[in-house]
Amino acid sequence: MTQPMFERIALIGIGLIGSSISHAVRRKGLAQTIVGSARTKATIETALKLRLIDGGCVKAADAVKGADLVILGVPVGACGPIVEEIAPNLRQGAILTDVGSVKAAVVRDVAPHVPKGVHFIAAHPIAGTEKSGPESGFAELFDGRWTVLTPEPGTDKAAVEKLKAFWMALGAKVEIMGAEHHDLVLAITSHLPHLIAYNIVNTAEHLQQVTNTEVIKFSAGGFRDFTRIAASDPTMWRDVFLNNKEAVLEMLGRFSEDLTELQRAIRFGDGDKLFRLFAEARSIRRGIIQAGQDTTAPDFGRGTQTDVPTDAKKGKAETR
Amino acid sequence: MTQPMFERIALIGIGLIGSSISHAVRRKGLAQTIVGSARTKATIETALKLRLIDGGCVKAADAVKGADLVILGVPVGACGPIVEEIAPNLRQGAILTDVGSVKAAVVRDVAPHVPKGVHFIAAHPIAGTEKSGPESGFAELFDGRWTVLTPEPGTDKAAVEKLKAFWMALGAKVEIMGAEHHDLVLAITSHLPHLIAYNIVNTAEHLQQVTNTEVIKFSAGGFRDFTRIAASDPTMWRDVFLNNKEAVLEMLGRFSEDLTELQRAIRFGDGDKLFRLFAEARSIRRGIIQAGQDTTAPDFGRGTQTDVPTDAKKGKAETR
Repeated sequence: MTQPMFERIALIGIGLIGSSISHAVRRKGLAQTIVGSARTKATIETALKLRLIDGGCVKAADAVKGADLVILGVPVGACGPIVEEIAPNLRQGAILTDVGSVKAAVVRDVAPHVPKGVHFIAAHPIAGTEKSGPESGFAELFDGRWTVLTPEPGTDKAAVEKLKAFWMALGAKVEIMGAEHHDLVLAITSHLPHLIAYNIVNTAEHLQQVTNTEVIKFSAGGFRDFTRIAASDPTMWRDVFLNNKEAVLEMLGRFSEDLTELQRAIRFGDGDKLFRLFAEARSIRRGIIQAGQDTTAPDFGRGTQTDVPTDAKKGKAETR
Repeated sequence: MTQPMFERIALIGIGLIGSSISHAVRRKGLAQTIVGSARTKATIETALKLRLIDGGCVKAADAVKGADLVILGVPVGACGPIVEEIAPNLRQGAILTDVGSVKAAVVRDVAPHVPKGVHFIAAHPIAGTEKSGPESGFAELFDGRWTVLTPEPGTDKAAVEKLKAFWMALGAKVEIMGAEHHDLVLAITSHLPHLIAYNIVNTAEHLQQVTNTEVIKFSAGGFRDFTRIAASDPTMWRDVFLNNKEAVLEMLGRFSEDLTELQRAIRFGDGDKLFRLFAEARSIRRGIIQAGQDTTAPDFGRGTQTDVPTDAKKGKAETR
C-alpha cells in the first residue's frame, strides 16, 4: 500500500470548502487522519457524524497539534487572528495554507505570525456553490476547476510542489501567480459579479411599483441567476470586499463608466452601438465553453434536475 | 377524436420561441396545420426538415392566409412593419399575437394596422435560453413558466380566453396585466439583468491588466453566469432596450444609486453595512425556489450535465 500524502490534515473551519476538501481527500486516501476545528460544537458534531473529520475541537490551537497540513477554511478576515493563536502549536515542517478568495491581505495578515520551519503558502480554489456549511460539501467540487497558489518569494520549493500535488489530487488544475495579480483577476471574475448580483437583488427588493411577488414570479427572465449568486455566504463576502478594496473599487469604476455609455446609447436610441456592444459579449462565452469551464447545455441544463418543485420540473426556461 | 384548438397556426419568425411553440403544439396536437415564414430560405428549409412547419415561405403576407392564429416571433422592433404588411391577408376572426419582451411599444406599433374583426392580443412568454434559431427550440420550454397577456380594454373576451387556454396547453401559467405594468416588471426582472450582464462582460474584455485567457480560466468564480446571459441574441435585446427606454432608464438609475451606496461602504470599510445588505439578498432567492421558478440544486446542478467537455465533466464549481 502506498503511503498517504499527509499523516494528519487539520481543517480550521469546516464549511463548504473544508467539507469538500475532506470528501476529496477521503476519495483518494490522501491523509491518514483528518481533524478539524469549528467555532461551534454543533458544526463539529455534524462534521463527525458525516465522517468529515476523525476528531475535532472548538480550539483551533488544539486541532493543529501534530498536523503536517493545516488548511484555513474561514472568512479571509479571520485568518490573521487564527494563525496568531495556532502558531505556537504548529509542527516543524508543516504546510500552512488557506482557501480564501483574497490573497494579498491574507499574506499580509498571516505571514508575520508564521514560525520559522513552517511553510505558509496562500491558496485559492476557484470553486464553490451558493450553499454554506459542513453538509454542503461534495468530493467533485474541485474537479476541473483552477486552484491558484500565491507563494511569497523564498518559499520552500518542495513545500510548494507538495501543495500543488495535493490540489491536483483533489481534482483541480493549479496555477501559480503573485498575490496582487490574483486579487486583480478575481476582482473582475468573481468579486465584481457578486457585488453586482447583491446590488440588483436589493434594487429589486426596494421597488414600490413592482411587488416582490412579481419579481419572484417573473424571475425566469434572467433575474433568478443573479439571486443564486446573491445567496452566497454574507460573512465571507463582506470580508472579501473589505480585504480587496483597491482592486474592487478599480473594477467598479470601469464597470460604471461602461454602464454610463450603455445608458447614453439607450437614452439617445443608438441601436447600432447597442447591437455592437451586445454582439461583442458573445465571444467570451465561447472561450469559457471551449476551456471546459461551463456546460454547453442551454440554461445550464436546468431542465435535467430532479429536485425542482413539481410545477417547474420540466422547465428549462430562461433569458427573455 | 377531439377537434384541435386551431385549424392553422402561422408562425412569423421561427427562432427559439417560434420553434418551441411548434414543438409544444405538436406535443398536444393543438393545430391541424402549422405554417411559417422566416426572412431567409435557409431557416425555412431547416424548419421544414425539423418538421416545425408543414409549409413555409419568406413572405409573411402569404404565410398568414387562412390562419386562425398568427404568432409574431420576431424582435419587437419588427412587429409594426410586419403587421402593416400582413394586415390585408388576415382572416376574419383570427387571433393575432406576439411573444416580445416589451409590450407597450408593440401595442403602439401594431394596433393601428389591425383590421376590424381580427383580435390582437399582445403576449410575452417569460421563458427562453441563451440559444437562438430554429434548432434551439424544445417542447418543454414553457412548462411551469409564466406567460403574460396584455389585452387592451375592449378586446374580445372569448379571444383572450382562447389565447389563455392555448398558452396553458403549451405548459405555461398565464397572468393578465396592463402593457405598461408588464414593461416595468420586466425592466427589473429581465431587461436590467441582461444589460448588467452585457456590461460586465465588456468591462472584462477591455481590461489591460487582466488577459482574456485569465478571465476565461477563472470564470468559475461567478463571472461565467453573466456570460451565459450575455450570449443572448443581440438583435432581440437591442430592440428591447430601444422599446422599453423609460422603464429601463428608471431601473438603471435606482441600480446605480444602490451601487454607489455599496461602493461607499467598501471605500470606508463599513463591514456592518455590507453584511446587512448581503444578508437581505438571500430572502428573495428562497422565494424563487419556493415558487418553483428555479432548481434548488447547488450551482443549478451543473455537475449533472453530460455534454460538458471532459475535464470539467464532474465540476459543479462556482461562486467563490
